Amino acid sequence: MPGVFVRRLLPALLAVFAATLVYSAELRSPYQIVEQAPVDHWRELESQNTLYIELTDGLVVVELFPEIAPGQAANFKTLVRQGFYDGLTIYRVVDGFVAQGGDAEKRREPRRGKRQLAGEFEFSGALPYDFTRVDSDDGFAAESGFMNGFPMGREGKAQWLLHCPGAFALARNDAPDSGGTEFYAVLGHAPRYLDRNVTVFGMVRYGMEHLQSLNRGQDSSGQLEPARRNPIHRIRVAVDIPAGERLPLQVMKTRSPSFSELVRSRANRPESWFVSRPGYVDACGVPVPVRLSP
Amino acid sequence: MPGVFVRRLLPALLAVFAATLVYSAELRSPYQIVEQAPVDHWRELESQNTLYIELTDGLVVVELFPEIAPGQAANFKTLVRQGFYDGLTIYRVVDGFVAQGGDAEKRREPRRGKRQLAGEFEFSGALPYDFTRVDSDDGFAAESGFMNGFPMGREGKAQWLLHCPGAFALARNDAPDSGGTEFYAVLGHAPRYLDRNVTVFGMVRYGMEHLQSLNRGQDSSGQLEPARRNPIHRIRVAVDIPAGERLPLQVMKTRSPSFSELVRSRANRPESWFVSRPGYVDACGVPVPVRLSP
Repeated sequence: MPGVFVRRLLPALLAVFAATLVYSAELRSPYQIVEQAPVDHWRELESQNTLYIELTDGLVVVELFPEIAPGQAANFKTLVRQGFYDGLTIYRVVDGFVAQGGDAEKRREPRRGKRQLAGEFEFSGALPYDFTRVDSDDGFAAESGFMNGFPMGREGKAQWLLHCPGAFALARNDAPDSGGTEFYAVLGHAPRYLDRNVTVFGMVRYGMEHLQSLNRGQDSSGQLEPARRNPIHRIRVAVDIPAGERLPLQVMKTRSPSFSELVRSRANRPESWFVSRPGYVDACGVPVPVRLSP
Repeated sequence: MPGVFVRRLLPALLAVFAATLVYSAELRSPYQIVEQAPVDHWRELESQNTLYIELTDGLVVVELFPEIAPGQAANFKTLVRQGFYDGLTIYRVVDGFVAQGGDAEKRREPRRGKRQLAGEFEFSGALPYDFTRVDSDDGFAAESGFMNGFPMGREGKAQWLLHCPGAFALARNDAPDSGGTEFYAVLGHAPRYLDRNVTVFGMVRYGMEHLQSLNRGQDSSGQLEPARRNPIHRIRVAVDIPAGERLPLQVMKTRSPSFSELVRSRANRPESWFVSRPGYVDACGVPVPVRLSP
């Protein structure tokens, strides 16, 4: 019996004690956590799956999560690499909702890749990343949190990327399998009711402010007349750009202790400024930190 | 007994039956509801409590809810009327978070009104408006919904305006009673963790796109160097502007049947486009409709 205690119970008790210590240690502020996060709590953007979108106002960098939508992500990269988007426009902008771009007039025929293919609204297979839970029921998902740096919802076997600000997704018509070329980025308060209705397959990692300052449409549809559309000068896959011309962007690993503390700190801001703390935060209320490599 | 049935039970049963009919009637889409809402489901903006903020890029109209923060609202209108803000700037802009303006350098002395006064973060008295509940626990409030066209949280006796996009609030320093002149508007995903930490006393009703396209600060604080600050040309109270020069803005009454249907429709979008419906919406996910009087 003493042997069992020393070999099994004592380590378990010590682990519980240590966990209590860690959890009750004074939280750092979100800014401190990001600033002090060690090098190995960050990862580079996946250059094979990162898009550089050149707009008139500046550069927008999007990282894709191809495992969640393999067919659509591969098709999109194929289109990008043949220059399908170069010279097209962002033609629909609804303030506080979305900016949508692509081939508004359906005039350009893909040489390779498809204009429309099967929607991949959710994914039920195994994914090779840890899930960091933020919420056990946010009203839109049985659980929500993060995987591989992307906000994610889960319910049963279904896994999908959330419509948080910066979500990068494929527009479609009425038919579920009618999307492929037209993309949008989420601008404002998370339109989570769109979750599981379209293929969300990436996140804006840099340059959101250039999407926020685009010309808007004049009515609620957000459609822009041709003369006011926002040019897309070029889209490239990062790995196709000479390394010296790429931005050294890094994203915080959402499975890192820094990120877990960030979630707790966002729910219970420790700064003395706060007089009221909700003890709660929604997944879209925890923007994943991005930085230029120091 | 038959008398009681006819006088009391029968009407009750009929009311339940009618309510079932109304609820199960086919929902209209959000766009249809807004477009078809009868005239008496809209109200004019309160000209006594509406601010016209003239920026370089265009006009921003803010409606105040003075009953929720009587001291601060009165002080702010006093400052506006003496021209305190005319020629000052919006000097802090964080993409997807807030745009903050006022007297960055504290160089201008209020002739009347105060620079700092008691914070009114929540209000526990009776308010002369109906509350329309959206959520019975959104993580940040025991219940959240709308009152008089403003998103509101309630918990016990406390009532406060939510930090939804467009919320108009007073910045402060560490001391809770240090706010008065400096204001901010919420730009992006609702930073609800700020609820009950500052005085929120209004909503942007028009011109959010002009706040979205302001110059941003270059670091995470969002502070702008003087040369890049965004001028505030003038702020006026609507009632002080000749009626012919005002915009005929109307806001949907949040106690109207149209708005209640809008909440249900936002949670369960009836359009055939949708393949997945969450049956849930958060209060900030229901923007209060605003229109120009037809």
